[in-house]
Amino acid sequence: MAWARDEMIDGRRKTGRALRWGMIGGGQGSQIGYIHRSAALRDRYFDLQAGALDLNPERGRSFAAELGIAHDRAYADYGALLAGEAARPDGVEVVTIATPNNTHYPITRAALQAGLHVICEKPLTFTSAEAEELRNIAQLRGLIVGVTYGYGFYQTIEQARALVASGALGKVRLVNMTFAHGFHSAPVEDLNPAIRWRVDPTFAGPSYVLGDLATHPLYLSQVICPDLKIRRLLCARQSFVASRAPLEDNAMVLMDYGCGAFGTLWTSAVNAGAMHSQKLRIVGEQASLEWWDEFPNQLRLEVQGQPAQVLERGMPYLHPEALADDRIGGGHPEGLFESWATMYERIACAIEAAQQGDHARLAGIRYPDVSAGIAGVRWVEHCVRSADKGGVWIDYR
Amino acid sequence: MAWARDEMIDGRRKTGRALRWGMIGGGQGSQIGYIHRSAALRDRYFDLQAGALDLNPERGRSFAAELGIAHDRAYADYGALLAGEAARPDGVEVVTIATPNNTHYPITRAALQAGLHVICEKPLTFTSAEAEELRNIAQLRGLIVGVTYGYGFYQTIEQARALVASGALGKVRLVNMTFAHGFHSAPVEDLNPAIRWRVDPTFAGPSYVLGDLATHPLYLSQVICPDLKIRRLLCARQSFVASRAPLEDNAMVLMDYGCGAFGTLWTSAVNAGAMHSQKLRIVGEQASLEWWDEFPNQLRLEVQGQPAQVLERGMPYLHPEALADDRIGGGHPEGLFESWATMYERIACAIEAAQQGDHARLAGIRYPDVSAGIAGVRWVEHCVRSADKGGVWIDYR
Amino acid sequence: MAWARDEMIDGRRKTGRALRWGMIGGGQGSQIGYIHRSAALRDRYFDLQAGALDLNPERGRSFAAELGIAHDRAYADYGALLAGEAARPDGVEVVTIATPNNTHYPITRAALQAGLHVICEKPLTFTSAEAEELRNIAQLRGLIVGVTYGYGFYQTIEQARALVASGALGKVRLVNMTFAHGFHSAPVEDLNPAIRWRVDPTFAGPSYVLGDLATHPLYLSQVICPDLKIRRLLCARQSFVASRAPLEDNAMVLMDYGCGAFGTLWTSAVNAGAMHSQKLRIVGEQASLEWWDEFPNQLRLEVQGQPAQVLERGMPYLHPEALADDRIGGGHPEGLFESWATMYERIACAIEAAQQGDHARLAGIRYPDVSAGIAGVRWVEHCVRSADKGGVWIDYR
Amino acid sequence: MAWARDEMIDGRRKTGRALRWGMIGGGQGSQIGYIHRSAALRDRYFDLQAGALDLNPERGRSFAAELGIAHDRAYADYGALLAGEAARPDGVEVVTIATPNNTHYPITRAALQAGLHVICEKPLTFTSAEAEELRNIAQLRGLIVGVTYGYGFYQTIEQARALVASGALGKVRLVNMTFAHGFHSAPVEDLNPAIRWRVDPTFAGPSYVLGDLATHPLYLSQVICPDLKIRRLLCARQSFVASRAPLEDNAMVLMDYGCGAFGTLWTSAVNAGAMHSQKLRIVGEQASLEWWDEFPNQLRLEVQGQPAQVLERGMPYLHPEALADDRIGGGHPEGLFESWATMYERIACAIEAAQQGDHARLAGIRYPDVSAGIAGVRWVEHCVRSADKGGVWIDYR
Repeated sequence: MAWARDEMIDGRRKTGRALRWGMIGGGQGSQIGYIHRSAALRDRYFDLQAGALDLNPERGRSFAAELGIAHDRAYADYGALLAGEAARPDGVEVVTIATPNNTHYPITRAALQAGLHVICEKPLTFTSAEAEELRNIAQLRGLIVGVTYGYGFYQTIEQARALVASGALGKVRLVNMTFAHGFHSAPVEDLNPAIRWRVDPTFAGPSYVLGDLATHPLYLSQVICPDLKIRRLLCARQSFVASRAPLEDNAMVLMDYGCGAFGTLWTSAVNAGAMHSQKLRIVGEQASLEWWDEFPNQLRLEVQGQPAQVLERGMPYLHPEALADDRIGGGHPEGLFESWATMYERIACAIEAAQQGDHARLAGIRYPDVSAGIAGVRWVEHCVRSADKGGVWIDYR
Repeated sequence: MAWARDEMIDGRRKTGRALRWGMIGGGQGSQIGYIHRSAALRDRYFDLQAGALDLNPERGRSFAAELGIAHDRAYADYGALLAGEAARPDGVEVVTIATPNNTHYPITRAALQAGLHVICEKPLTFTSAEAEELRNIAQLRGLIVGVTYGYGFYQTIEQARALVASGALGKVRLVNMTFAHGFHSAPVEDLNPAIRWRVDPTFAGPSYVLGDLATHPLYLSQVICPDLKIRRLLCARQSFVASRAPLEDNAMVLMDYGCGAFGTLWTSAVNAGAMHSQKLRIVGEQASLEWWDEFPNQLRLEVQGQPAQVLERGMPYLHPEALADDRIGGGHPEGLFESWATMYERIACAIEAAQQGDHARLAGIRYPDVSAGIAGVRWVEHCVRSADKGGVWIDYR
Repeated sequence: MAWARDEMIDGRRKTGRALRWGMIGGGQGSQIGYIHRSAALRDRYFDLQAGALDLNPERGRSFAAELGIAHDRAYADYGALLAGEAARPDGVEVVTIATPNNTHYPITRAALQAGLHVICEKPLTFTSAEAEELRNIAQLRGLIVGVTYGYGFYQTIEQARALVASGALGKVRLVNMTFAHGFHSAPVEDLNPAIRWRVDPTFAGPSYVLGDLATHPLYLSQVICPDLKIRRLLCARQSFVASRAPLEDNAMVLMDYGCGAFGTLWTSAVNAGAMHSQKLRIVGEQASLEWWDEFPNQLRLEVQGQPAQVLERGMPYLHPEALADDRIGGGHPEGLFESWATMYERIACAIEAAQQGDHARLAGIRYPDVSAGIAGVRWVEHCVRSADKGGVWIDYR
Repeated sequence: MAWARDEMIDGRRKTGRALRWGMIGGGQGSQIGYIHRSAALRDRYFDLQAGALDLNPERGRSFAAELGIAHDRAYADYGALLAGEAARPDGVEVVTIATPNNTHYPITRAALQAGLHVICEKPLTFTSAEAEELRNIAQLRGLIVGVTYGYGFYQTIEQARALVASGALGKVRLVNMTFAHGFHSAPVEDLNPAIRWRVDPTFAGPSYVLGDLATHPLYLSQVICPDLKIRRLLCARQSFVASRAPLEDNAMVLMDYGCGAFGTLWTSAVNAGAMHSQKLRIVGEQASLEWWDEFPNQLRLEVQGQPAQVLERGMPYLHPEALADDRIGGGHPEGLFESWATMYERIACAIEAAQQGDHARLAGIRYPDVSAGIAGVRWVEHCVRSADKGGVWIDYR
């Protein structure tokens, strides 16, 4: 119960005003829709004014009304939303896309072409060519594309990043990543349509767990160790539930970072009995870090030759970057909603900076931008290519 | 990553409309103010329309503007707020009081007398006589008083309550409680005014850690084991930082529940190096439960003769009461803000039920009501009395 | 896998020769007998030459033969052993007594009167008067009495002692102790004679868990904080399984150390689902220590304002006293048998020092001596007295 | 403190007599020598009668004397020992070889040719051809070769094996293994000769951590999942401390078990700050097991859809195989010395069975036999071959 610091989040907005915001997808009963709204509305950075929330237009309108969206701004589909909002002087400036994977690319492209900033669920696209096309459009128009790597904004991730940057670990040698749950050990998709699309290439794209899970710790590793670039990669993937083939429900990836560092990533949906197991271990010459998303208020620091240390969120011994986003004192648990809220806050700041043409400010904001989105798509492409060749090393391009 | 259930919180409101809400205290830089607002606004149960946020009226008005409160509803003090809102046809229906302890009683009384529902920080009052007076006023006018025992609405607490009610533990024998941090091991109040008032009887009342910390796990114990009634109690309290006397910074309480059950509670602000240590262990004839507020997504169930079990929030094996308040699937960590949001949601439901005279519905809502507020005050009174007599057993009245 | 240090236990004996040793009790099927033998024989400090192992002489002789005891030195009872060995020029020098509690006093007295050193299970006696009588006899004859507080010789206990002595914690304020298992939550003694005597005052003495369990962490607290002396004490005890009354199966003890420090101890045999829960937490002005006997290779050090540290047995950052007794490098788990072996090693050294009249050496050996045995008996006496008066404070004499 | 079961180890020998035993290597200051002796002598299965303990004959003889070895049976080297003992009617029957890796093959061969049973440190040899030669000699002469995979005899390993055999996990899909410490993160061998030989191919063989560490969890995986046979394997190895090349201080191995199961193994000596991290996770269709050598009294069982369970050594809910080797009741920690003692006990039983020509009994004893020794050597050969080809898949022969 450390109620003592001043420089915390207390609801004061870092931007001048709330952004006019619309949602595509994420309707009634959607968990992901709820976390998007919780994050966006948390500290009044966004104002929900329009929505095309549901494939079923009636249900979408009904839910929109519950959420306080005006009747004439509850649209039947994303095309109608983009057109309708474009026609208004007070139309939305930014949309969130929380629809199945196969629609991310066309909707994002359409939204960008309509001049809107975009916040999109991952994967941004199915191919890196598509993702780069989106980047080009966004750059041309000065628009922000945020990709919701929502685990990346825990304060302990900032602390890990600061520790690596400070040299506390020495040169990084190993990056071990895991995201391996067990919820799909059995073919649960046979009975549950909400899971079924995830293992159908038409809707899910070229991969299941590599894209759905593994890109999360991959993003975290890039945040914490920004200097590591993959040079070669090898992936073995399996479909333990055979009907999921060609999509994998388990995979192992080895990464050669070229500079003498090495990475591994295990991802699975058949890790029976496990909850998430999203973990990172960063091993340096002198010390290691270990982070686990199920217990995000703690970060383990192990300096060779010293007792292992358990760092706690909110404590003054942390780096200022790790303290800046506290919403409550140390000891109290924050959770995933806070990480998402901070992500949305940063995207709002990025959008404001873009709107104001303030490139210096924009450069200083660490948020999951279109490049992070591309990086994930490209990584999955390489993994699938390696796996489909029999699990061989392939150069990273 | 269990994205599978339907009956979760997704932003749909269980009440007909948002309540018109005002805040007294909890201004800029106040952590507690921020968590009250985060909780109240989370799912649109409350609409912040008025405030007397700060002892410094200018600062209070400035912050109110940032929060979107209209200029004419940003008041200099609580008296002005109550008068001003009473004069409006659309005045607030409910106020939250997040001011220092010594003001809870007069402000709550004034707000009730003005016909408002009240959500008040604990302790509700300094004496049980005062607290009972508030209850009488509230009952007479059909008003709700919520007391913010904000740890009580974790889903794992609901699960613990359901397990005890189901008889899974057998008859409860022991209730061991702890809330013992180390942040005030040194006389930090000498330098920090935000802490100083907590050890000054004028502002803090007759106790420090007994009232500030211990009533939290006490409330949890009452939620989980509603049948246990204290018959006798013994308290030893110490002021390890001598300048805090007569207020204690450490205390141990023994409780005889009369029915053959026994309880203990350790509370401290000098438990050097500890974060919170808010823990409960409920020991029954056949099994025990263990809960720790720093890791609220887990609940440990130990059945004698069987392997210990770690229950996880969000999992289908839990009781429906423990699943009803999920905001995201199991594996993802929820935190303190979710517990508070659920508390506020329930208080909103209680207020609506009271407004509609729906006593049956009201009786079915478990929220921290005025009786819970009285219970905490009375317990502290008994502890102080026992301690001041030298740590003797006293009958509980 | 730290295979690096030289100054470890590698089987070299610190005494000149093995002591001629006999056992009374601890026969076939006795776990406690096995751990005594394992400890005594571990590094050849003792040589098992005689025994009166069993109430059933035939079974005792048979088991003695299996253990390599000569036929003529396998006795029917302790009287025969003492007489028989006294008659031999090469008779045993020391006996271990591992019989039911009610026999400890007479057998120890007889052995001392026969000029033998004694290693006795706790409790040494039922009354402190008896225990002091034994001390007097031992002192008069220059004999060693060791009392088997077998948890006290983990290296992490030495580290805790060294840390407190070094001032790393500052002045000690709180000592919280627990030893609370759940194995006797139900009246298992009804079916199991091996447990029945523990709840029968005739065999067990004036207490059950206070004597059987609680004196263990009490001893540890005295080892770690030798300066703390109890001034007043209060005990509440319960018999949750009613047929155990007057013996308690659960108790809570508060201790006022007079110097401004305060202690608590919870002991139980009805802590359903718990294994041991033998834990100590020592809270000082600046830091706390936490130790748990189920994980004795770790010691937690929490310095206020710093990340919590997990100290590991065997690591060079520990105090030399904590490293001296390592039998294998850090990372490898040692267990209870090693703590016992070190205890026996020290008792052997003490006996050799006594035999040689080397008082300086004797004074330098920390082993569980007759004073430690008396301290446990006296503490139980005070607890029982306080509890039987209704749980009142009584002065400690 | 479960003192209740009868069928535990209490010092009664399962063999008819102690074996006459000699030691080669493992002299003064050798940790590994001490654990061999502690294990062999623990329950009188072996009687230490001869030794060639040290490269320095004087030091070896001096230490032999301390250990109670007769002067004329303390030899200058292994050749003298084999010759001297062969010449005696009461010469040793079995020798333990605890010398540097490069000598294991010639000494084992010589001992077998002298008609002695052998207990040898791993790796048994540098090449599988050599290891198979040893097997042939042993088979021809009816001799036992035990290879000291000392982690394999924890009761929790037996429980894991029993759970897999019982089908509790369903078909095994994944085996994830780790043994990754950080003690050699820096080039500590520059200063410490006891480490230097481990990274010198002349003494250590073709690998460092693959042979020294990784074969341990590999053996455990073979014990727990005896049906899994590696079909293909891929290994990437690194020398993060460059002077160690060609020997690796880190490696990652992927294993295709052919039957649709997949394995991974990470081993390292540069996992900075880690103690051992020797862990296994066995993932089946319905449940997973997790084991960690630093906490060997616990085994985690995670059934998909149920709360995770923490199984404790010594508890009646375990399989009989897992209870048979208990030396003390549950709750008390056993450690590495107990696992080794049980391994030695089983090797003694195997030797007795071989001496008696009792093949049925021999077949029923699970001990680390020459085939286990060969398996480890062969696995390292495959790993090195794959790594040296650039980390490619190679068929397993």
